[in-house]
Formats: sequence, C-alpha cells, structure tokens
Amino acid sequence: MKKSALQKARATYQPKLPIVLTGAVKAVEGQPTQSVANQAEIKELFPNTYGLPELKFEKATAPAPSKPINVGVILSGGQAPGGHNVICGLFDGLKKINKDSRLYGFLMGPGGFVDHQYKELTADFIKDYRNTGGFDIIGSGRTKLETKEQFDKGLEILKELNISALVIIGGDDSNTNAAVLAEYYKSINAGVQVLGCPKTIDGDLKNDVIETSFGFDTATKVYSEVIGNIQRDCNSAKKYWHFIKLMGRSASHIALECALQTQPNICIVSEEVEQKDMTLQQVVDYVAEIVAKRAANGNNFGTVLIPEGLIEFIPAVKRLIAELNDLLAKNAEEFATVAPADQRAYIIGHLSKENAAVYESLPEGVARQLSLDRDPHGNVQVSLIETEKLLSEMVGKRLAQWKKEGKYNGKFSAQHHFFGYEGRCADPSNFDADYCYALGFNAACLIKGGFTGYMSSVRNLTKPSVQWIAGGIPITMMMNMERRNGKMKPVIQKALVNLDGAPFRKFAEQRDDWAVNTCYVYPGPIQYFGPSEVCDQPTLTLKYEHQGK
Amino acid sequence: MKKSALQKARATYQPKLPIVLTGAVKAVEGQPTQSVANQAEIKELFPNTYGLPELKFEKATAPAPSKPINVGVILSGGQAPGGHNVICGLFDGLKKINKDSRLYGFLMGPGGFVDHQYKELTADFIKDYRNTGGFDIIGSGRTKLETKEQFDKGLEILKELNISALVIIGGDDSNTNAAVLAEYYKSINAGVQVLGCPKTIDGDLKNDVIETSFGFDTATKVYSEVIGNIQRDCNSAKKYWHFIKLMGRSASHIALECALQTQPNICIVSEEVEQKDMTLQQVVDYVAEIVAKRAANGNNFGTVLIPEGLIEFIPAVKRLIAELNDLLAKNAEEFATVAPADQRAYIIGHLSKENAAVYESLPEGVARQLSLDRDPHGNVQVSLIETEKLLSEMVGKRLAQWKKEGKYNGKFSAQHHFFGYEGRCADPSNFDADYCYALGFNAACLIKGGFTGYMSSVRNLTKPSVQWIAGGIPITMMMNMERRNGKMKPVIQKALVNLDGAPFRKFAEQRDDWAVNTCYVYPGPIQYFGPSEVCDQPTLTLKYEHQGK
Repeated sequence: MKKSALQKARATYQPKLPIVLTGAVKAVEGQPTQSVANQAEIKELFPNTYGLPELKFEKATAPAPSKPINVGVILSGGQAPGGHNVICGLFDGLKKINKDSRLYGFLMGPGGFVDHQYKELTADFIKDYRNTGGFDIIGSGRTKLETKEQFDKGLEILKELNISALVIIGGDDSNTNAAVLAEYYKSINAGVQVLGCPKTIDGDLKNDVIETSFGFDTATKVYSEVIGNIQRDCNSAKKYWHFIKLMGRSASHIALECALQTQPNICIVSEEVEQKDMTLQQVVDYVAEIVAKRAANGNNFGTVLIPEGLIEFIPAVKRLIAELNDLLAKNAEEFATVAPADQRAYIIGHLSKENAAVYESLPEGVARQLSLDRDPHGNVQVSLIETEKLLSEMVGKRLAQWKKEGKYNGKFSAQHHFFGYEGRCADPSNFDADYCYALGFNAACLIKGGFTGYMSSVRNLTKPSVQWIAGGIPITMMMNMERRNGKMKPVIQKALVNLDGAPFRKFAEQRDDWAVNTCYVYPGPIQYFGPSEVCDQPTLTLKYEHQGK
Repeated sequence: MKKSALQKARATYQPKLPIVLTGAVKAVEGQPTQSVANQAEIKELFPNTYGLPELKFEKATAPAPSKPINVGVILSGGQAPGGHNVICGLFDGLKKINKDSRLYGFLMGPGGFVDHQYKELTADFIKDYRNTGGFDIIGSGRTKLETKEQFDKGLEILKELNISALVIIGGDDSNTNAAVLAEYYKSINAGVQVLGCPKTIDGDLKNDVIETSFGFDTATKVYSEVIGNIQRDCNSAKKYWHFIKLMGRSASHIALECALQTQPNICIVSEEVEQKDMTLQQVVDYVAEIVAKRAANGNNFGTVLIPEGLIEFIPAVKRLIAELNDLLAKNAEEFATVAPADQRAYIIGHLSKENAAVYESLPEGVARQLSLDRDPHGNVQVSLIETEKLLSEMVGKRLAQWKKEGKYNGKFSAQHHFFGYEGRCADPSNFDADYCYALGFNAACLIKGGFTGYMSSVRNLTKPSVQWIAGGIPITMMMNMERRNGKMKPVIQKALVNLDGAPFRKFAEQRDDWAVNTCYVYPGPIQYFGPSEVCDQPTLTLKYEHQGK
C-alpha cells in the first residue's frame, strides 16, 4: 500500500478517549427502559432483552482481572468515515482487557458472517488503517441479517473461533438486526453477546440517547468544502445557478447541515415539503421566485441544495408513483404492445385525473424514466431520477413563461452536481476519529461487562472529547413498530429533520436573507493539524441541538 | 462577510517571498530573445516589443527612491486558486515602492476595463481576500481584448486614473492579448506598460521559461482529494466502476496529475489517443479490456479518469463533427423538414461512409445531441456531450457482447462524476498562495523597472519558495502563428501533455500495474498547518519535469 504524505502523518494521531475510559471502569445501571412506542409488541418480541437499563461507565478503583475474549466485528451497509477507527478502538480495548484477546473481522459485511469469510485483525495489520477513511479493512456489504438460518449459520463460525461477542457497525436497520440477533442468541443460550455501533453519514440514526451517528461530521464537512468552492466560483463568475444534490434519501440532515455551514441561496428540506404538502410545481415556483428576485437585483447566479430523497417526500409524486406501479403491473401485457411514441398518452389516459396532471407536469424525459426504468419487482425507480436536473429544467420553463409575461428579465443558466461518494470514505475529521475510536473502545468495555442487545454510546459530544460520557443504550429502547414490505416489524425509529428543532429553526430564520443577499460561507477543507477552532468543531446540527437543550 | 474558522486562521498566513524580492532589486538582462516559431511574422507584428531580453532580478545594494505608481489589474477568464494573492502581492509590492501608489481593479474582467467599471483596492478592502480562493474580489469575465477600439477606450480610463501600468492575470489567450496591447500602447507612446501573469488550472500555459501556471497545483489537489475518497469507497464496496471526468478541454494535464497522485485503474490521456489515431471504439475497448481483466480476478470495480476534451482529440470524431457541421449548415432547410424519427437515417444517408460508421457507433442519445444541440454559429456542441456517460455506456455494450461470446463473466455497474467547479476557487495551497503572491509582487518590480510586454516569472519552483528565482519573460518569446477562426494569428503556444516528458512516462510505466492490481493512493484534503511534507509539496508533474531536466 503506497501511502500519501497525509496518510503517513495522520497514522501517528492518537485519538483522544473520554477520560473515564482511560482507566478501569464499572457500569452503573440506570432505570429499566421501554421502547419509544408500541411497548407491548416490542416487549413480546424481545422477551430476553427488553427493558434493560441504560448504562453509564464510571471510574472503578481497580481493574478486575480478565480472561482473553474473542470478538467478531462486521461493517454493514454504506461506508462512513471513521469505521476503521471503531475497529481500532475495539481492538485496543480488547487488548487492554487481556493481551491474548483476539479480534476477527467478517469480510464484505454480514454476508461474510453467514458464509464464514473472515480475517483475524492483528496489531500489525490494523496499524495501516488507523485514522483512515473507508471500510476497506474488511469490506462492507448490504446482506440483511434477518433469518434464523443466517443466525444459526453464523453461530457455527462463532463457536469455531471461540467468539463470545459480535459487534455490528451499521445504520438503523443493521442495529435493528443486531437487536434481533442479540435476542435470539440469548433465547437459545448461545453464549454470544451482540452489540451495535451507530454508523451513517445520513445522520438519521439519532435520538434522545444517541446524539449522532459517526461519519455525518466528516461527510458533511467534505460536501461543505466543495459546496463552498462552488459558491466562491459562482460569486466570481456570476453567471450560473448551481443545482447541488446531496446524498441522503430518507432524511435531509446532510443538506441542512451543509446549508448551515455554507449559507447557500436556497436549500430544500424534504421534511418541510412533505409537512406543507407541497406539489413539485410549488417547489419549482419557490426556487424560480428566488431566481427572479435575485435577477431583479442583477444577480443571475446562485446555489440550490437538494436532498437526494426530495422526490419521494412530495406527497403528490408519491401518490403518482403508487398508481403508476399498480397500473403498469396490472396492464403489463397490454402496455408492452403500446408503441413507444404512444406510451405517454396511454399512461395519461389510464391514470386518475389528479395523477395524470402530475405526470403531465413532469419533463418528458423524467416521465419516460418513471414508466420505463423499473426495478426487478416492477417498481418505478425513483432513485434514478436526476432530481437536480429535473428541478432546474422545470425552473427554466417557469422562468421562460414569466419572461413572456414580462415578470422576469434575467438570464438563467444551470450547472448540476451530485455529491455522495466524495464524502463517505474521507479520512475522518478529528471529531469522527475520536468519536469512532471511543465507540469501539467503549464496545470492548460493554463486552467485558457481559452486556448484550446494547448500542455503544458516547455522549456530551459538543464538549472536548475527554469530557465525553460513555456507556450503553438498550437497542429495544429506540424501537417502534413500522410497516416494511407489507408487514409490521420492530425497527429503530429513523430521525427525520425536526422542523421544530434548533438546526432547522436557525436555517429558517436566515434563509430569506441568504436567498436574496449573497451570504456564502467558504468552510474549506478539513484540517487535522491547525488551531482547535479550525480542526475540532462538531457539526452545527449538533451544536444547535445542544444549545436548544 | 461571515468567515469560516479556516478563513480566519488562514488570513494571518504570510506568503513566503523569494529571498531576492525581500530587499531592493535590479533587473539583469539576458540575451535578446526570439519567438518559439514563425520569428519573421511575429517580429513584424510586434516591432516595438519583439526580441526583448529575459530578465532576472538580483539583489541591489540600495533601493532607488521612487515616485508613486498607479496600476490597474484585470482578472481574465476562468477562476484559478490564488488570483487574490496575485493582487495582494502586487498591492504590497506597489506600496513598498511608494506608500502613495494606488491599485485599481477593473470589474468582471476585461469588459470592466473597456466599460470603465473599476474599484480602488485599498489595504482595508483587500485584507479579507488574502490567501483565499475565488476571483470575487473584482470578478472575472471572458471578454476578449482584441480591437483597437477596445484599447483606445481602455486608455481613456487609464489616463483618467493616471494609471501607468496594467497587469492582466489570465491564460494563454489573455496573455497573448496583453502582448498585443503592450505593443499597441508602446507604438502610440501611450505611456502605459502592460504585463501578464500566467493563470489557468488547466496547466497548459507553461514552457521552458514558465514552469507552471498558478491554480493548477490547488485544483488538482482538490480533485485528487475527492478522487481518492471515491477510490477508497470503490475499494470498500467493490461493486462500482467510477467514471470520473475532469475539467481541461484543450490538454490532459489535470487528468495526468490526478492519476499520478491517486493511481487509478485507468486514465485516458487525450494527447496519446490523438497521437495513436485511436477511434472512439478503440478507447472503449481499451477500457473494456481492463474491466474484463479485473473481473477475471474477481474485481468488479475500478476507477477511470477522463479528460474533458477527449472527444475533441479523437481524430475520427473530429472528422465526423467537421462533416456534420458542413452537412447541417448546407442542408439546413431540408433537414428542418425531416421528422424527428427520421433524422438519424437522414444524417447517416448523407454522411460519407467512414463518418456514417462513426456516427452509427455512437449511442443514440449522443448522436442525437450532436445533430440537434448546436451553438449560435450552427456548430455541434461537443462540450455538451457527457463523455463519462458516453464511455461507460459503450463499455457496457461491449462487455455485454463479450458476455454473450463467453469472454467475460463479471458484473458492470457504473457511477459518473465530473469535477471542475469544485476546484477552481478552492483556497490556494501553500504552493499557490506563495507562488501567486510572488508573481504579483514580482509584477510590481517589473513595473518599477519600466518594462512592458513581459510576463511575470517565478522559477525554480520545486525548491523552497525562498530559493525561487524572479524575473520577466517577453511574451512574444512564447508565441507562434496559429489558425484561429480561419485567420493566422500570433498566439502563445499551448502546452499539451508531452508524451516524451517525464510525467507521462512515469504514468505509462506504471499504468498496467495500476490497471490490474488495486494501487489506489488517497491524498486527502489540502492541509495548511501540518508538517511540510504534507503541506508544501508541488505537483508531481512539476517534480517529475524538474527531475527530468
């Protein structure tokens, strides 16, 4: 592995642990907990792991001597900066318990656990991954751990390797599965603890007890860097509107955080669009009005941040897609005989009046994509729609109309960007490097304490890392019942952007000013070696959420 | 202006000047020069400024007392990191000559000079722009300074403001125009010196005497950062081929430098494609073969860097476009009556056999774009073609064919990226911050020396900045005659990637290894405060070019 100069310099960084984890610890148990909703159903589904107390680690007088512990670790789902440091923290924590402890990594995600693909992680091997981005240390994957067969198959390799605890690093679904697995192993007395770690750049795995998922900090900083650069370009050339789509399908935390960091002219927040029951045309008009207002001031340029999931949050589009899915499934044979040139008319003729109108309002290319490109289950593939281009095309049309009506007399020229892969594997910021290392080290403490069904928890995150609070949160505590693929299932509640929360309110207070005036902020690239106010700041989302408490 | 934490910290950075410029200087003249080609024609066109000697500044014993000098400055063309520091260096240099010197910035590029739009740049105003990216201090524009009318109009405002020197910060065309303007003002004894500064992220303004243009260092570092992040993602998920297009239409320096920095599986170099007279299908097959080879090893992922100008370098495509332009111009009326569904057949029927075959080989969407989207002059708009998607689509088709033939049995799934605006206005790296400041400061020294028709020159750039050599290069020295819009004109020779040069050879030696094996390097974000080996490295292009000397 040829290393860059930064990689070499960064390898020597020693993540700062919460002070409490630097010595011997004891777990202090809080009150028994209950799930955030549907308590009776969740309790019934998790008879062995429901109602566990929250845990907080405190200083112990002397470490209890410990036998070696063998542990398995899985990286599950999309990459997030800092995953390698969770593993390094876990490794160091286990070695501190007993130098003969061993850590095994299952390869390419949960699939490696089921298929018995693994690698022992030694000190010499992991040293190259300390403080680096990516999940390439053992790879990741999207296999869902859900069935008894998988659990039993996995147990075979755990027994073979004498592993007594499994750490699953993943998002809300993976942690839900960790809880199910913990419950199952407990129910059969398998002698295996299962613990989760909160990972996702999307920022939607958080709640009263989990302050943030790891990776959100770094990823949003990378996106804010390039958005800032684009804004500086925009403000220098003064001739383009940049439509910038940002990863995050199920919530708009990324777009919101980047907006707070960079102060663009426009940021769409999907949760607000949904709450206000806005149509796509209303979203378009909202953008077009700001474009026109700026043009009236001579400013034919600007920036628009768009969350990837926007289209799926628009109630009217959701209804259209539902009917389209039905229609194309029911009339599949007949539709297959319709000539391409007649398909549009056919679809409009067969949709309800309301949905036909929405369909007609879409640019033809997008409408065609909706009816032609379907997934293996026959469903419309909303994720293929280039929302940033859809929006700018519709804005352009509306402006052309206003120009005819004499209401607008500017120039509108658009550039498009989509940022996602650029940030998921960046080298973790100091925040994520420390947070992840602490999450992993803390998981080792939970393992030593014999706990199962917990998520590793590190809190008080807007304070310097030495003051962070470490402990464990019962995963069932974050659960409710939701419909998934037509069946009610216990799942960790996803955190959408809270329109009453401090981050959104801060944004909403300022956005009219940002829209008309040019208030761009240019955060620049993540710094690792400079002054603390440059290198060690948490996200504004976290800062405002904590101020609001 | 709300400043980010990094902006505030970076504002205090004092760019390091070449030691020679820190005290009093005298200009040492070298031998008279001549243009790189077409000496007789260029000499005739520049009777007053041809053949000037190269200049090198050396330490003088004592500064000559100087009167205040008023200077105008123009930012011309696309943004490049460090432009603000050229202006700051120029300002500080002028104030050092005499504290009553004044600097005026013409607004939004050369257009502001012609239209008398300007702003006085004071110490208080420019302090917010020190070490920052962007051209927003006075804006930039693409108006070409070419006509006597423009020159005379501009002279009015220069006289009004008592300006005796004009500094044009721009690319090859803008510096060519600076030379023409210098010659003109000299010929009419206008009493105005004109100097140029070498700017462009594309890296194609360089030669034996100009080692690099400013901005190339920072922009390629930003692109390498995000390419590295994508590669880490690619190597973690192991499921996508990322096709990454990079800005730079007329040369492939950016793609090549990013390849040297990040070691992707594939990097296309347009100059090589042209030299080997490769067809588009041959480029596609080159990529497809590597995809297949990696798939045979179980690696269904990878990265491909593509220079923006690729399509225009492919000789067969160039010939097709030339014939298409002719055909659609000649048959415009008839073509307008052809139904959309029949246009493809019409075009194929009217093209020569060879070009018809090339046209047919293009994906339909691209072919349609070539015939429909034309610029105001009726020409095909090659720049609208999404080369990264075109390539991946054609690679996908070829692989599907090979799969049928049993020659390939992998999975091919592509993601697309285009990076350009992300890097043009980034905060300058230490290298660009120092280089630009020195270029501007040095321009003030050239002004004080009474020189005109020179480009500000700072050399020895792979050494620490204090050891840099400062001076001036007669712009006519870099010129040759080229056909532009049907007329022979004197222009600065563009530097294409030299296939015999050290940077390309270094790449060519290693690319087969990078293709099959996964040798990704992850440079990470630009650092400003860390160890020198992280913060102060010039580009590998520059390093290899100097090693090769």
